Amino acid sequence: MTDLLDAMRSTASAVTRQLDALLPEAAGPRGQVVQAMRYATLGGGKRLRPFLVVATARLFDVRDPRALRVAAALEMVHCYSLVHDDLPAMDNSDLRRGNPTVHRKFDEATAILAGDGLLTEAFGVLSHPDTHKDPAVRALLVQELAAAAGAAGMVGGQMIDISPEREDLDLDGVTELQRLKTGALIDNACQSGAILGQADDPSRQALAAFTADLGLAFQIADDLLDTEGSSAELGKPTGQDVAAGKATFVSLLGPKGARDKAVRLVDSAVEHLNSFGEKADLLRQTAHFVIERKS
Amino acid sequence: MTDLLDAMRSTASAVTRQLDALLPEAAGPRGQVVQAMRYATLGGGKRLRPFLVVATARLFDVRDPRALRVAAALEMVHCYSLVHDDLPAMDNSDLRRGNPTVHRKFDEATAILAGDGLLTEAFGVLSHPDTHKDPAVRALLVQELAAAAGAAGMVGGQMIDISPEREDLDLDGVTELQRLKTGALIDNACQSGAILGQADDPSRQALAAFTADLGLAFQIADDLLDTEGSSAELGKPTGQDVAAGKATFVSLLGPKGARDKAVRLVDSAVEHLNSFGEKADLLRQTAHFVIERKS
Repeated sequence: MTDLLDAMRSTASAVTRQLDALLPEAAGPRGQVVQAMRYATLGGGKRLRPFLVVATARLFDVRDPRALRVAAALEMVHCYSLVHDDLPAMDNSDLRRGNPTVHRKFDEATAILAGDGLLTEAFGVLSHPDTHKDPAVRALLVQELAAAAGAAGMVGGQMIDISPEREDLDLDGVTELQRLKTGALIDNACQSGAILGQADDPSRQALAAFTADLGLAFQIADDLLDTEGSSAELGKPTGQDVAAGKATFVSLLGPKGARDKAVRLVDSAVEHLNSFGEKADLLRQTAHFVIERKS
Repeated sequence: MTDLLDAMRSTASAVTRQLDALLPEAAGPRGQVVQAMRYATLGGGKRLRPFLVVATARLFDVRDPRALRVAAALEMVHCYSLVHDDLPAMDNSDLRRGNPTVHRKFDEATAILAGDGLLTEAFGVLSHPDTHKDPAVRALLVQELAAAAGAAGMVGGQMIDISPEREDLDLDGVTELQRLKTGALIDNACQSGAILGQADDPSRQALAAFTADLGLAFQIADDLLDTEGSSAELGKPTGQDVAAGKATFVSLLGPKGARDKAVRLVDSAVEHLNSFGEKADLLRQTAHFVIERKS
């Protein structure tokens, strides 16, 4: 795992530098929304989605600097979703990665605008000629991110998560919720790496099968951490889903059943990478990391 | 003006049909966010930005059906900005176009998500192959909309509008605020029509000069309506800027000074259209309409 952790740390630093460059501070009264966008994105995090972009792009011999712009765009979308999900009208969270959430650090209006600004900027980055010389690649990156992040993807998942029906979801319902809320963007990370590498359809399908399992395993691990992890390690409150009476993989399957399912999903995920041979070792290790992490 | 009003009404209907087709209802618990997105976009409005897209596209012989997808995408962005601006943490408005605002009709969380969903979907529509066969056109449409709508455009303008410095802005400050908050998207409407028509640089520059004047004239007319118009005609509360002690073109120039400035701006705007000859008559009439409208 040491190699993986080194690679993840190195990509995380590079993505932070890329975000810093893509979000320069602005003067005058509009400066506050840019400050909030920077606060929301530069404060750390695992940078799992950016790492999946970079690791997948390497499968197709795309060099890291090119993948990092796309990785940063995806991280902007991930961070915007956290900023809006943390708002009082949604999860009402005060803490994120051990720091005050954006609406606590600034105010609610600034948090709403910062999220809007990050979502918008992500599409600006993907469509910019610096991202890829072929405009067909840029347009496809935009199209697939919009599909993954919109009402039929991440936004739809968040809607289910706050719906009155949320408490009573069965296993299929929770699976569908998480497929949209977290799975769609995780899948998009790998697909974006593949699009950058102008990968063929069988490769993209293999990666879609990989991320379908990986995304679910990631969420089960998240549910386990929410039940068993410590708030100090996670940098955010724990036990919130249980307190809210929300059905989760852990409440539906029990801790052991959930852990077993996550392990099976990771085994299945890595099998979908067979056609890539040794080149996919980093993605294989990432899949194992996803269910072994402590935060 | 009869021709113009007929053309505007006809485009408004066509855009509403296009939005209806682009935002199909969804089943299950995520259906609510789609309902809210439809509520936010299908309830009418002048559809000024869509009309500018269509009228500009016609200058370059782009047929209406092609321009309508782009027009609908821009209207999604305009409507998302209204939904978020109306939120309690921002303008806290209960009424929009004579109907309850989205967070009043549904709830705050749904309104935040509906705005997010509309912004995301707009980029999905622009990047989709149905919008234009040339991916360079699609990528450029995305890039320019992101620039117009983001922190250096509309979102930045809204940030200024709710900033502590807002009350004390001078004429330059109010001009800059409105250039970002409303001007950027009005400019983008004409630029998008030109991009669709693969217009040359001089044409795009002439249109940029046209919209710089038009956007400002539009805002001055808005300020005048906020001071002098009736809430019933506008379908939203009036006098709010005055009540909030916000500097506006009317408070800084007086009603007569503001009206004179708007007339001068429209005269200047239409001069920038000279190179287009008779073909630009619809845009010329639109500029006059913008300061003569009653809502």
